[in-house]
Amino acid sequence: MIIEFENGRQSTVDQIRDLAARFGLAIEITSREGVYSTIHVIGDTREFATREGYLRDLPGVRATWRVTSDFKNIARTVRGADGKALRRERRVVEVAGPDGKQRRFGAGHHMFVVGPDSPQTLEQTLAIAHAVREVGERFGILDRMMLRGGAFKPRTRPTDWRGLGMKGIAMLDRAREETGLPYVTEVMDLNLVPEIGEHADMLQIGTRNAQNFDLLEAVGRFGKPVVLKRGFGNEVSEWFHAAEYIANQGDLDIVLCERGVKTLFTKGGYCRNQPDLNALSYARRQTILPIIFDPSHVTGDHRLVPENLLAACAHLADGSITECLHDEGFRREQLCDAGQAILIEHYAVVVEAVLAFEQHVAPRLTALLDTFEQRG
Amino acid sequence: MIIEFENGRQSTVDQIRDLAARFGLAIEITSREGVYSTIHVIGDTREFATREGYLRDLPGVRATWRVTSDFKNIARTVRGADGKALRRERRVVEVAGPDGKQRRFGAGHHMFVVGPDSPQTLEQTLAIAHAVREVGERFGILDRMMLRGGAFKPRTRPTDWRGLGMKGIAMLDRAREETGLPYVTEVMDLNLVPEIGEHADMLQIGTRNAQNFDLLEAVGRFGKPVVLKRGFGNEVSEWFHAAEYIANQGDLDIVLCERGVKTLFTKGGYCRNQPDLNALSYARRQTILPIIFDPSHVTGDHRLVPENLLAACAHLADGSITECLHDEGFRREQLCDAGQAILIEHYAVVVEAVLAFEQHVAPRLTALLDTFEQRG
Amino acid sequence: MIIEFENGRQSTVDQIRDLAARFGLAIEITSREGVYSTIHVIGDTREFATREGYLRDLPGVRATWRVTSDFKNIARTVRGADGKALRRERRVVEVAGPDGKQRRFGAGHHMFVVGPDSPQTLEQTLAIAHAVREVGERFGILDRMMLRGGAFKPRTRPTDWRGLGMKGIAMLDRAREETGLPYVTEVMDLNLVPEIGEHADMLQIGTRNAQNFDLLEAVGRFGKPVVLKRGFGNEVSEWFHAAEYIANQGDLDIVLCERGVKTLFTKGGYCRNQPDLNALSYARRQTILPIIFDPSHVTGDHRLVPENLLAACAHLADGSITECLHDEGFRREQLCDAGQAILIEHYAVVVEAVLAFEQHVAPRLTALLDTFEQRG
Amino acid sequence: MIIEFENGRQSTVDQIRDLAARFGLAIEITSREGVYSTIHVIGDTREFATREGYLRDLPGVRATWRVTSDFKNIARTVRGADGKALRRERRVVEVAGPDGKQRRFGAGHHMFVVGPDSPQTLEQTLAIAHAVREVGERFGILDRMMLRGGAFKPRTRPTDWRGLGMKGIAMLDRAREETGLPYVTEVMDLNLVPEIGEHADMLQIGTRNAQNFDLLEAVGRFGKPVVLKRGFGNEVSEWFHAAEYIANQGDLDIVLCERGVKTLFTKGGYCRNQPDLNALSYARRQTILPIIFDPSHVTGDHRLVPENLLAACAHLADGSITECLHDEGFRREQLCDAGQAILIEHYAVVVEAVLAFEQHVAPRLTALLDTFEQRG
Repeated sequence: MIIEFENGRQSTVDQIRDLAARFGLAIEITSREGVYSTIHVIGDTREFATREGYLRDLPGVRATWRVTSDFKNIARTVRGADGKALRRERRVVEVAGPDGKQRRFGAGHHMFVVGPDSPQTLEQTLAIAHAVREVGERFGILDRMMLRGGAFKPRTRPTDWRGLGMKGIAMLDRAREETGLPYVTEVMDLNLVPEIGEHADMLQIGTRNAQNFDLLEAVGRFGKPVVLKRGFGNEVSEWFHAAEYIANQGDLDIVLCERGVKTLFTKGGYCRNQPDLNALSYARRQTILPIIFDPSHVTGDHRLVPENLLAACAHLADGSITECLHDEGFRREQLCDAGQAILIEHYAVVVEAVLAFEQHVAPRLTALLDTFEQRG
Repeated sequence: MIIEFENGRQSTVDQIRDLAARFGLAIEITSREGVYSTIHVIGDTREFATREGYLRDLPGVRATWRVTSDFKNIARTVRGADGKALRRERRVVEVAGPDGKQRRFGAGHHMFVVGPDSPQTLEQTLAIAHAVREVGERFGILDRMMLRGGAFKPRTRPTDWRGLGMKGIAMLDRAREETGLPYVTEVMDLNLVPEIGEHADMLQIGTRNAQNFDLLEAVGRFGKPVVLKRGFGNEVSEWFHAAEYIANQGDLDIVLCERGVKTLFTKGGYCRNQPDLNALSYARRQTILPIIFDPSHVTGDHRLVPENLLAACAHLADGSITECLHDEGFRREQLCDAGQAILIEHYAVVVEAVLAFEQHVAPRLTALLDTFEQRG
Repeated sequence: MIIEFENGRQSTVDQIRDLAARFGLAIEITSREGVYSTIHVIGDTREFATREGYLRDLPGVRATWRVTSDFKNIARTVRGADGKALRRERRVVEVAGPDGKQRRFGAGHHMFVVGPDSPQTLEQTLAIAHAVREVGERFGILDRMMLRGGAFKPRTRPTDWRGLGMKGIAMLDRAREETGLPYVTEVMDLNLVPEIGEHADMLQIGTRNAQNFDLLEAVGRFGKPVVLKRGFGNEVSEWFHAAEYIANQGDLDIVLCERGVKTLFTKGGYCRNQPDLNALSYARRQTILPIIFDPSHVTGDHRLVPENLLAACAHLADGSITECLHDEGFRREQLCDAGQAILIEHYAVVVEAVLAFEQHVAPRLTALLDTFEQRG
Repeated sequence: MIIEFENGRQSTVDQIRDLAARFGLAIEITSREGVYSTIHVIGDTREFATREGYLRDLPGVRATWRVTSDFKNIARTVRGADGKALRRERRVVEVAGPDGKQRRFGAGHHMFVVGPDSPQTLEQTLAIAHAVREVGERFGILDRMMLRGGAFKPRTRPTDWRGLGMKGIAMLDRAREETGLPYVTEVMDLNLVPEIGEHADMLQIGTRNAQNFDLLEAVGRFGKPVVLKRGFGNEVSEWFHAAEYIANQGDLDIVLCERGVKTLFTKGGYCRNQPDLNALSYARRQTILPIIFDPSHVTGDHRLVPENLLAACAHLADGSITECLHDEGFRREQLCDAGQAILIEHYAVVVEAVLAFEQHVAPRLTALLDTFEQRG
């Protein structure tokens, strides 16, 4: 539920917060239009909504809106008692960096999340992290950069290498310390959410756990920003409901991540999964959440990363998450997915292309899409 | 690894058990051909296999076989140092009933696992359980029957009803007590494996957790018989690897369960998922594990259950797991998947049809398939 | 449009036929309930239906019904002006044999269509045809048997063998002559419809031409019974519309044939296509047309034919179309799809299994499905 | 087969042409490296290739190369008797315009094929054609523009509007005359290939006829440039083989067109088909043919056209084929696919975005891909 109220009505805010708390719900305040602000009551509000009359009578409350979509917390369109629809603004998810800069997903520019498939040694982890930082410096986009790396790795085969665990997390901590770049890492075991969450700046739910509901709720309760990958066999509605599992626990700092779906059409091996870029566009229209793209897991082949990443830009992705390599010679030492990590020097060319796209192409697309949205 | 040895060589068995234990591996002994027996060393045997020479020199050891398949524990075909292939026998998974009878999956007859979608009240749970028992008595197949029921339910939407939890487990306990029929129930949260596992006779991994590897290992460590459903977006190889996650922990009492995959072709709603019955046949040829079929989740429609269940018989399924209803009037009170539970009186007709199939049709199919298998 | 009228009203029948003819439509009369009969006006009746008032006033006309489905000619449910629904009977498609016996698809028993992939030599063609006839004689089902064989073959690769053309047709003619069994054969080039149609007893539209609309109409105009295979990438609605293309030309003697769809899940090669048996059940509920199954092209492997064919029986298929071989030694000489032809002696076992299924299993399934249909 | 020979050896060329003709094959000469040229012998060269020794001994012949790929005429990689691989240059397909300018597909710039779904009236057809021409003039890209329009329309339902036939062709002729822009139009009935082909500048094979082999060969024999759409249920290998059907008749002027495949993941309606842009990239690496993209049929929604078309640019498509509308008011009068035609003024913005992409983004991508290709 969304409640719009006059700015400066602190007692009204307190009353709403108290009522929400009694139903086990969190609230979030967004300033809006100078004079008015909105409170978003997060979580399962079915019981809470029975008090809509009471809420509307609080001093300074201008309107209340219920979400008409199936997706109570993340839908873009909400509807008031008078039937009028309100299109909510898209959410900006912020990740604090140790360098004091906020990384902002959904703020109108492409976020570059990039790093090793996994930390294997401290040396390799730091080499990549510094190389990433150099690219950020070269293009003046350090505040749009984050590291990524898997210390706990879901592997199809039980006998495959599964990452260094907390030792890997320690390496990522060190990389953050040396470069000032925050990092995101995957969590699989719900018992480890607090321990990993204490270290990492952002947690990732992987494609195989996209409907592991206990894990989703554990991450939602922990409250840190989350990257939620789409299950490779999931329809978009299932993906959005997975986000609702997190949001219902009071955590709306969710970044959706499209990473390709399984179809017959990639048979023959020209691409590991099939990117569903229109799902990305659809998520942008239907939800308030930022949405990014993972060209590495989509393709499984570093040579396909550049064109796939740019295609995601054409669909106005809010960012990308890419596996990279600091040195071609290291490829044969990589213990997992060696073929999909792009060399950092090639990644730099991709960054340049993305920035050119943002400057010369995206504004024209955005203008058109705004036209379409206004017409409905 | 499989080791064949002369019966009566207890000291050899002890030495192999000790060596396996040093590598953290369990062993399982199968009597074979009267004079000889085999030891199956379960788990990740890559290190252990370096001792193959030592093993072959133990008194009474006749041959050692390595698994050539990607699926070290569950593959049907193993190969000796001399290159000769051995086709292992298919495994019988036994579930002990409180009535003292073993329910045997893979023993050449169809196992009927049937019960409510979820226990909602004790009355409903017992009503169904007794109705199931009556069907079993009528056809003289009580030792081929088990109950099913979900107390912890994975739901796509966070706001949907998720089952009664441990209270539901208590109802299933009571149903077992009154009917003598053991039951299987789903576990989702790895922390609950011991608690649920203490009550249930068999644990189920659901389709959404088919690649929740931490859960698979927790269930494998616990050691009870498991029903492992295929992920609706998983290829068979991913499914078999999921079984390996359980087996690697020393638990080979796994029953595979095909429950339909997602395809575009069920669009229009004539069937919720598309059954992949040839995957069932493939699993029978490639693995030693029994394999059953879930017509309820495949179809989402009780009116389609009879023909789908019989079609699985045509593919020689080792059993089926079906949701049922004791009373048509209860359908509108059902809190989950109301449309897919078949009325118990209709289920009885299906049982009759399956028994007729076993008697009149299956022997002809089996004879043909044996011919094909011998020809290779 | 369906018009019900009192028997014996010949002048009314003549008037309806004349009116229909003025709109370019054919009619078909079905006797019904002794006293009344129905006229089915076949083709695009949108214009014709504007005369519904006139038709209802003709002497002896009891009711007129419009088809409410999207599928004007083949839908099972029609609706009168009073809104009442009528469930039409399913159609029996008859193919006349040179032995004077009608082969009847949809008449409540399984039709066995079987023969070589292609006629390659007269000797091989006759050898198979005689072997098929022997099976028919052994089980007393000659009037439920037909031959099949492709003389014009659609091949993915242009350099692959494409059949003997009219020479192959001549071999099939000879096989019919010697065995008394009618045959079905594929037509691809619309210009050859009259020439092939003059010889063959039934024409087949293959999966790659399932939406070759000019060919569908040419076959519909020719008027002979047709087997219409589903396109391997087609949803059922597209398949039904393809049948409408034929029916709109006045030819309702259409037998639908499910032959598997393409999905990712057969990757790994355990089955060439994925059978969609619930589509078969759906077609039975939604259309008046008989529906058969092609286990050979579904699987691409003769060892999978028996269980797939029986599974189709579980879905109450009206028949099957199977490729067979008279002699295992001939397999390596076969120029197309050698692996999928089942040896005739194995096919005989399958026939025996189907007959046992019809006798012991099918009646129980049919009774259940009738119950479901009556409840709606 | 490819034969490399010294320039100026006319008698050798004549001998090769004569020999090819005896095998029913055409040849095509490409000048190469100044001193040497190559002859491509088009069609099924299996018999012809037995004369490789004779060919190598002809005066001036430097090398002969056989195609190692399954795709004899269109593969990029060919291999000599010495085993050395040669990477052929990608083909430029030229379409002559009445304005004397060649439209060149595959020449390193994006080709803009655009026009109405179908000519419905002369007025509408000319209005759109002139609007298209204006866009071309505004951006100085008239020589990169073509018209499109369907006069013979494949429709899923037989009762839907199927276009104006030859009357529609006459309207397209008139549009070409007035604007100087050549046009492409679909042909479905193989008997109409000569008649339509006499008018149109380029023929199109639609998705439903992608494996209508008789039609493919008829078009190949006719010899005009062809747009070959991928079947929505076809794997890329089937698509390439379809191109081989055309090429084998001596016509290599084929432009491949990706138009989306059917997958489950577009369920919910956010996009009609799922574009497979990596298939486009794969075709570019594996074949010599230009490849374009159809954003209109992929999406079925004009509001999704801009981002999808730009995404295809990210995959370096050689062009696009788009349905457009001259006037929003006409949308409700459109008889087919009204929702997918983009307004011409919006299309102009897309053109601008594509040109910006070509200038600022594509060179960086191309440089990277060249690097990858050189490394192999």
